[in-house]
Amino acid sequence: MATINRNYLKLQGSYLFSTIAKKVSAYSAEHPEADIIRLGIGDVTKPLCPAVIDALHKSVDEMGSADSFKGYAPDLGYEFLRNVIAEKDFHDRGCDIAADEIFVSDGAKSDCGAIQEIFGLDNKIAVCDPVYPVYVDSNVMAGRTGEYDKGLQRFKDVVYLPCTRDNGFVPEIPEEVPDLIYLCYPNNPTGAVIKKVELQKWVDFALKNGSIILYDAAYEAFITEGDVPHSIYECEGAKACAIEFRSFSKTAGFTGLRLGYTVIPKELKAGGEELWPLWARRHGTRYNGAPYIVQRAGEAIYTDEGRAQVREQIAGYLENARIISEGLSGAGYEVYGGVNAPYIWMKTPDGMSSWDFFDYLLEKVQIVGTPGSGFGPGGEGYFRLTAFGSRENSLRAIERIQRL
Amino acid sequence: MATINRNYLKLQGSYLFSTIAKKVSAYSAEHPEADIIRLGIGDVTKPLCPAVIDALHKSVDEMGSADSFKGYAPDLGYEFLRNVIAEKDFHDRGCDIAADEIFVSDGAKSDCGAIQEIFGLDNKIAVCDPVYPVYVDSNVMAGRTGEYDKGLQRFKDVVYLPCTRDNGFVPEIPEEVPDLIYLCYPNNPTGAVIKKVELQKWVDFALKNGSIILYDAAYEAFITEGDVPHSIYECEGAKACAIEFRSFSKTAGFTGLRLGYTVIPKELKAGGEELWPLWARRHGTRYNGAPYIVQRAGEAIYTDEGRAQVREQIAGYLENARIISEGLSGAGYEVYGGVNAPYIWMKTPDGMSSWDFFDYLLEKVQIVGTPGSGFGPGGEGYFRLTAFGSRENSLRAIERIQRL
Repeated sequence: MATINRNYLKLQGSYLFSTIAKKVSAYSAEHPEADIIRLGIGDVTKPLCPAVIDALHKSVDEMGSADSFKGYAPDLGYEFLRNVIAEKDFHDRGCDIAADEIFVSDGAKSDCGAIQEIFGLDNKIAVCDPVYPVYVDSNVMAGRTGEYDKGLQRFKDVVYLPCTRDNGFVPEIPEEVPDLIYLCYPNNPTGAVIKKVELQKWVDFALKNGSIILYDAAYEAFITEGDVPHSIYECEGAKACAIEFRSFSKTAGFTGLRLGYTVIPKELKAGGEELWPLWARRHGTRYNGAPYIVQRAGEAIYTDEGRAQVREQIAGYLENARIISEGLSGAGYEVYGGVNAPYIWMKTPDGMSSWDFFDYLLEKVQIVGTPGSGFGPGGEGYFRLTAFGSRENSLRAIERIQRL
Repeated sequence: MATINRNYLKLQGSYLFSTIAKKVSAYSAEHPEADIIRLGIGDVTKPLCPAVIDALHKSVDEMGSADSFKGYAPDLGYEFLRNVIAEKDFHDRGCDIAADEIFVSDGAKSDCGAIQEIFGLDNKIAVCDPVYPVYVDSNVMAGRTGEYDKGLQRFKDVVYLPCTRDNGFVPEIPEEVPDLIYLCYPNNPTGAVIKKVELQKWVDFALKNGSIILYDAAYEAFITEGDVPHSIYECEGAKACAIEFRSFSKTAGFTGLRLGYTVIPKELKAGGEELWPLWARRHGTRYNGAPYIVQRAGEAIYTDEGRAQVREQIAGYLENARIISEGLSGAGYEVYGGVNAPYIWMKTPDGMSSWDFFDYLLEKVQIVGTPGSGFGPGGEGYFRLTAFGSRENSLRAIERIQRL
């Protein structure tokens, strides 16, 4: 008789953003007239930039002609894209990453969730608390986390790294040595960044202990300050201890187009075994490549024209972040993030719980945010707002909150 | 210290089609003038049909305007696509499958590889021999197959179902009861089909034993004969024991566009536990949806115009299959498949091994096919040719082989 993977039964609640979507649609059904402002899920709202649209139309035409039609993509992704990524995202920043160390995929979420598969089930993972749920949930499903402790609101076999206002939302090196360390900077959900000197400490720790850092740099394009690394490979020795995930979702508004990539340096080993061939095998066996037209769209953001257009989009979102952040501060709220990231991390007022504040904002002023506790117990008492709405909606949201 | 998933070390060789690609590019490098005809990997060559191209251009324009821009897709896929799939692929064939039992994805390969994740590691899998490598390899990676026995060329804990010319490449019900049974019809690699009465026996067997059938119907659109089921849900009771995978890759030439779907009936259970919520959770946590523009492209093949264009493409490929099949038969080869499938499964001449025949065809007449043994020991002594080339190349290939 077939049996299920019982690790799934350890998962807590449903996927955070699915829960929010259900709550919002229930509210909408009851209040069809409600003018809801969505600053919850980190989804972009600006249309794809003209350079991307042009690349899509052009490549769609190629797909319509036998001479230029493209079937299955090469295993690692098209060279035209991997070459320009290696040059612009890495070489230009002094990072020695080769095009064949780049694996193109349908997004950082897929890869962040899948990466654990190439590691043994006996690896102990460490995650920040609060944290993007995919890192923990994918390990729960695989059976690497142990049971959930309802009292502690934590999985027994996971090392949680508290990220608090006291440590600037950058965790301290833990006493217990984890095998796989998930780090995400600029951070989702706190909007915090890690300085290069701090990230180097993690790299040194991983090198010393044979740990692997799984570095999610999906929000790299939002970095505005100078001493913040854009890639973990800016740190010395990182190629021997780190995998990096990148996304086009927030960089260029590709949430509905799906494109990302993962960097696995050839020299990277776990327990003496090379990881590149394992991920290559995983990629070739379990995945079939991002669409040609989407890879062409990705290439377009590296042209001078595309880069300028994408930077303008990001500047717009960062302006929203400033509006929200300053507006909330002005209204007396305690606010973090929003400078090098599209996320504003606010303390809930009057000791309200995160979900109570979610309901309160939805019911009183029809604003959807994300409860901090959805990202782990360390997020309790916090609330995440995103800068991905329109400027107008960011302004309107702040006006509404200021009226509360 | 981090350790790798050692199950990967049990994998045999590299992924079949990667190996072929490497052999062909080595040959091309040595013989730059060679006019190679590729009938190896099952990749289409006809351009996307006009209805799909129009849908892509239209939806790309939507992505370029703030009013119509689409970010993250709904978890299960867009309703416009799931509704039309439910109607045209199932209701029209008398199968009672609802739109919310359909999960849209980036292709059947991804889903066929991922489906095993929602089952326990103690499940015993059964696969046809020969077989599409992804079913076995994904289970090797997960640790469900045991060690590889080099002598038997089989994994110790897998139930192999021999598919031979004697049984018409449709396996007999095994004595040992497997928990998860992978079936693919029309079959890759043999091009064989299963009649409804035969498939019903498998459904009855699964129902009786609490097994789950993982039914890969990626080549459904190639069925030309009347008593061949297009969906396993045409069989009585299948909703209580089967998951079905569908692909747009071969149906509509989407190998480079990436779209497929998986059907998990709400009533389907394994060991008393519902599978729908597990796959929904997996889909929501580990995946982020197929691109909006690709889902619109998929919708376009269900219009009258799109359907007619797609049928014409398939008719062209089936004509190639006829040319290859009849040509080979005429030249004295023993040939199977090619009537309800884009694959021709031929016996190698003079007792040659599959890989020897691969090298022989590549070197003598510059034709690339796929060695049958790459699909399992039961494929040894066979060779797969695909009908996905042009008509001209199919004719030229047969001329070359006839000259041998």
